[in-house]
Amino acid sequence: MRIDIITVVPDILKSPFEASIMKRSIEKGLVEIHFHNLRDYTTDNYRQVDDYQFGGGAGMVMMIEPIDKCISQLKSERTYDEIIYMTPDGETLNQSIANQLSLKGNLILLCGHYKGVDQRVRDHFITKEISIGDYVLSGGELGALILCDAIIRLIPGVLGNETSALTDSFQDNLLAPPIYTRPAEYKGWKVPEVLTSGNFPKIETWREEQAYLRTKDRRPDLLKN
Amino acid sequence: MRIDIITVVPDILKSPFEASIMKRSIEKGLVEIHFHNLRDYTTDNYRQVDDYQFGGGAGMVMMIEPIDKCISQLKSERTYDEIIYMTPDGETLNQSIANQLSLKGNLILLCGHYKGVDQRVRDHFITKEISIGDYVLSGGELGALILCDAIIRLIPGVLGNETSALTDSFQDNLLAPPIYTRPAEYKGWKVPEVLTSGNFPKIETWREEQAYLRTKDRRPDLLKN
Repeated sequence: MRIDIITVVPDILKSPFEASIMKRSIEKGLVEIHFHNLRDYTTDNYRQVDDYQFGGGAGMVMMIEPIDKCISQLKSERTYDEIIYMTPDGETLNQSIANQLSLKGNLILLCGHYKGVDQRVRDHFITKEISIGDYVLSGGELGALILCDAIIRLIPGVLGNETSALTDSFQDNLLAPPIYTRPAEYKGWKVPEVLTSGNFPKIETWREEQAYLRTKDRRPDLLKN
Repeated sequence: MRIDIITVVPDILKSPFEASIMKRSIEKGLVEIHFHNLRDYTTDNYRQVDDYQFGGGAGMVMMIEPIDKCISQLKSERTYDEIIYMTPDGETLNQSIANQLSLKGNLILLCGHYKGVDQRVRDHFITKEISIGDYVLSGGELGALILCDAIIRLIPGVLGNETSALTDSFQDNLLAPPIYTRPAEYKGWKVPEVLTSGNFPKIETWREEQAYLRTKDRRPDLLKN
């Protein structure tokens, strides 16, 4: 998989790709990440990427021309499965979308910044708009990070233990059951007896019950799907 | 505001706080961010922070003792408004929660990693559990970043233009209307005439209509709240 990220602040994105699972997936050659600084696609001396909005109002808008130039350049080099704009009014990311995108070959992620991009970018270049949740961030860069992480960890070979991702919350529309590790007692707080019983069918039943109860208590909406 | 972030991979968190709005808010003294490496609170030679789960199964669990030590140390130094655990089965973050948290003084964010933390940590130390969305990430660090960004940009003085955050999506349960900037025509694609009319009451009406239409089309659920 190859992911091209278009941004006006590439510096934000550095460290998360240089640590933990995302770093290892790049080192293993399972994914390539390329940052593109939108200012490199400007033609004026000021390297201007944003301007005031038509009709007045607070906040700057990202201009169409540098974005067009950057996307066109990338598209001339290879075929992309999706050109995704990260925006709070996009389709809300969920595990099912992450699963689908993890099967793709080449993706472009366009990060909005300031108030967002000129609407004509969305109308003419973007194939998919994704929001990571119902809250506003200072830019699409952090959203792009989230999307990358959610996708990349699903690529076979990225996680050390292949079965691990399948027991995560949401993969079966259930939240994960409670988990415990040593010591069995800490300050008088004990691990549920069943987990130290060695009776694995009983443990499995307990976990299924707990996953169901937790989902019913915290996220009954998931059970309706 | 002061935010203490407890993590096993502090390196992930570096660059997002060294760029853009989060960097400026720290430089302006409006927020203090402190990272705490959980390994510094271990007592064994291996600096072990995780262990196998009781009852078997894939994935490691973060142990209670180092987390207890770290949180207890912080609580001995000052009072915290909330001790937040970032987890996919927590309460889903939205703009209203971000608004509320932006008014707090001191927060601790505990980042889960691997399969998550020992349930006893959640039962005895955590005051609030937050999820940034219905998808699984490789760790709570990226979730903590999102939460920090969503909160910090709301602190008065952080954004250059005070009115800007109030016209964002979600602040009035409506998505933002389309925005445009120069040029007025690009490759034959024109900006809506009303926006270049100079008739500001008309522009305001158009924006309200567009915000409503976009919300009705994309997120009718927001209109029901």
